[in-house]
Amino acid sequence: MAGRRERALEAARSVGADVLLAAHPSTVTWLSGYAPELETGPSPFALSPLAVLAPGRLPVLVVSEDEAEAAAATGCEVAAYPGFGLGPIDPLGAAASALAPLVEGARVATEAAALPAGLAWGLEWIDVGAELARARAVKDTDEVERLRAAIAVCDAGQAAAREHAVAGISELELWASVRGAMEEKAGSRLPVLADLVSGERTAEIGGPPGSRRLAEGDLVLCDLVPRVGGYWGDSCSTFAVGAPRERARREHERVRAALDHAVALVRPGLVAGDLDAAVRSRLDYPHHTGHGVGALMHEEPRVVPGSRTVLEEGMVIALEPGTYGHGVGVRVEQVVLVSADGCEVLSRHDVSL
Amino acid sequence: MAGRRERALEAARSVGADVLLAAHPSTVTWLSGYAPELETGPSPFALSPLAVLAPGRLPVLVVSEDEAEAAAATGCEVAAYPGFGLGPIDPLGAAASALAPLVEGARVATEAAALPAGLAWGLEWIDVGAELARARAVKDTDEVERLRAAIAVCDAGQAAAREHAVAGISELELWASVRGAMEEKAGSRLPVLADLVSGERTAEIGGPPGSRRLAEGDLVLCDLVPRVGGYWGDSCSTFAVGAPRERARREHERVRAALDHAVALVRPGLVAGDLDAAVRSRLDYPHHTGHGVGALMHEEPRVVPGSRTVLEEGMVIALEPGTYGHGVGVRVEQVVLVSADGCEVLSRHDVSL
Repeated sequence: MAGRRERALEAARSVGADVLLAAHPSTVTWLSGYAPELETGPSPFALSPLAVLAPGRLPVLVVSEDEAEAAAATGCEVAAYPGFGLGPIDPLGAAASALAPLVEGARVATEAAALPAGLAWGLEWIDVGAELARARAVKDTDEVERLRAAIAVCDAGQAAAREHAVAGISELELWASVRGAMEEKAGSRLPVLADLVSGERTAEIGGPPGSRRLAEGDLVLCDLVPRVGGYWGDSCSTFAVGAPRERARREHERVRAALDHAVALVRPGLVAGDLDAAVRSRLDYPHHTGHGVGALMHEEPRVVPGSRTVLEEGMVIALEPGTYGHGVGVRVEQVVLVSADGCEVLSRHDVSL
Repeated sequence: MAGRRERALEAARSVGADVLLAAHPSTVTWLSGYAPELETGPSPFALSPLAVLAPGRLPVLVVSEDEAEAAAATGCEVAAYPGFGLGPIDPLGAAASALAPLVEGARVATEAAALPAGLAWGLEWIDVGAELARARAVKDTDEVERLRAAIAVCDAGQAAAREHAVAGISELELWASVRGAMEEKAGSRLPVLADLVSGERTAEIGGPPGSRRLAEGDLVLCDLVPRVGGYWGDSCSTFAVGAPRERARREHERVRAALDHAVALVRPGLVAGDLDAAVRSRLDYPHHTGHGVGALMHEEPRVVPGSRTVLEEGMVIALEPGTYGHGVGVRVEQVVLVSADGCEVLSRHDVSL
């Protein structure tokens, strides 16, 4: 199968464009390997990075000078514009000037949900967001390596959650240990999406850690989604503080069996909607059965009712059945890599109760 | 002075528009009080929230259904579109449909650096980003209260930094304690921009925490910028692990005196560029002397060379002189509220060495 830059250009050609202008941060990462800062929202000094891909050329990253060194470290070309400084701030004007020579006279395929209106002005553009989403579902070999690294960070976070979850500490205190363990493992700060809820809060499916204190016998539902080197890991476990209650034990067994069933079914040729139906027939949950992970934390193939997406070798899928109700929520999740005749489980964390 | 929604409408009128369409997350917060999630980048299921402001109406927040409850809690109106779900994902189409009736036939003032091209398509729009930046410099009373709360969280983080900074621990381990203390104080997870560097790294002005381990006599430079309830606190201190070296003591005295001088000068009528010059004449640093803080972490008034912005009562300004070189970097920062005849220091953290 063609590498992802070729698939991206094919997507652009399919909508009649000469050049691809990627504007969503995850698409920029996918094309270039550059992982922009995310954690504090848009910078006052720069627009979100752009990547321009034209046939026969490396991607060109359009970033502020503050990001130029990190962007160049990817091996891509860089078109930098002034960022942080003491003079007037005009990131839109500066980015537009840096972009203009790269797209002049071209018909541009872009992401209309992400490209700022001020950059689209005067361009002949067409949206290619849906086509790019499909092009990203199968991972290149180097992407699988990045995903393995991200999942290893999940594993470290899940181990810390079990180690530190003792009666008396708050969810937020537990969270500080879990996040700290992931950042120690990665050697840097990380953007992290997470559910960390305990006790009756587990029945709410998820939510951020709060001030609730853990008590003996509580369940803890811990779903960790860190971005490491631009790629998102994903993982969930649900475990008890001390001895679990009987109902929790029963529900956990059912959910664990559903996850094992899902993993056993995955192989190339399986229709995602059929996988969803097979797992959902065993359990009642209001969310997807699974989803692709990559430079975005939720992408194709989505394992949802009615999906006609056919699984292919090289897809990376998080599978996460659960059950929620009567004050007890349980979810377990593993990430798998679709192989020639089944799948490899990439997650190594403890999914027992 | 008119409240901020009136000033926002005045900005829109000044460019000949009937309606304001805010697209930058910080502008949405400023107009509505709604603080969207930031920490993991754009959601796969929703666009960044929008706010539409028309004369004589409350702001209308255009958000996904996942955010509708939190958005409605601000007291604003809400136009919600489908978010997370099991069906096909089309946040652009869904948001466009929710937005259309609110801007139909209007001439729309918007933020061209933030509004997605796919939403601008078909609108008669004009950029009002620069005018809004000016309108935000003076804070309303309720904004000052939010800033006080954010700065109290900074204070908690700074106290934790001093408490936990012992020889042998890594910057990342210290960071986990500092961030945890801020999140405990706020009672929730927080987006945080931060510099946390030690030893010779302090001379690099800033940077994220890494694997370096603190040693006796090291300086630690800790600049904490958490978002609490939609508003950003800011604070910096530089302190020693154990007994400081003589050079560090000397540099710290100079920087501390420069900060005290800056605070003593602030009053309505002072030109920001003159404030910058007065402080910069004492020390050499490659960054601003200060900047406004609010729903964005760096806004007007920018205290930079040549700025002709005149300070006004109600502005909130972070002042942060520093000095960097020969393996020693020192910066101290306090946030002040411009009062009728001077300023009030809002920061309460320890700025000693």
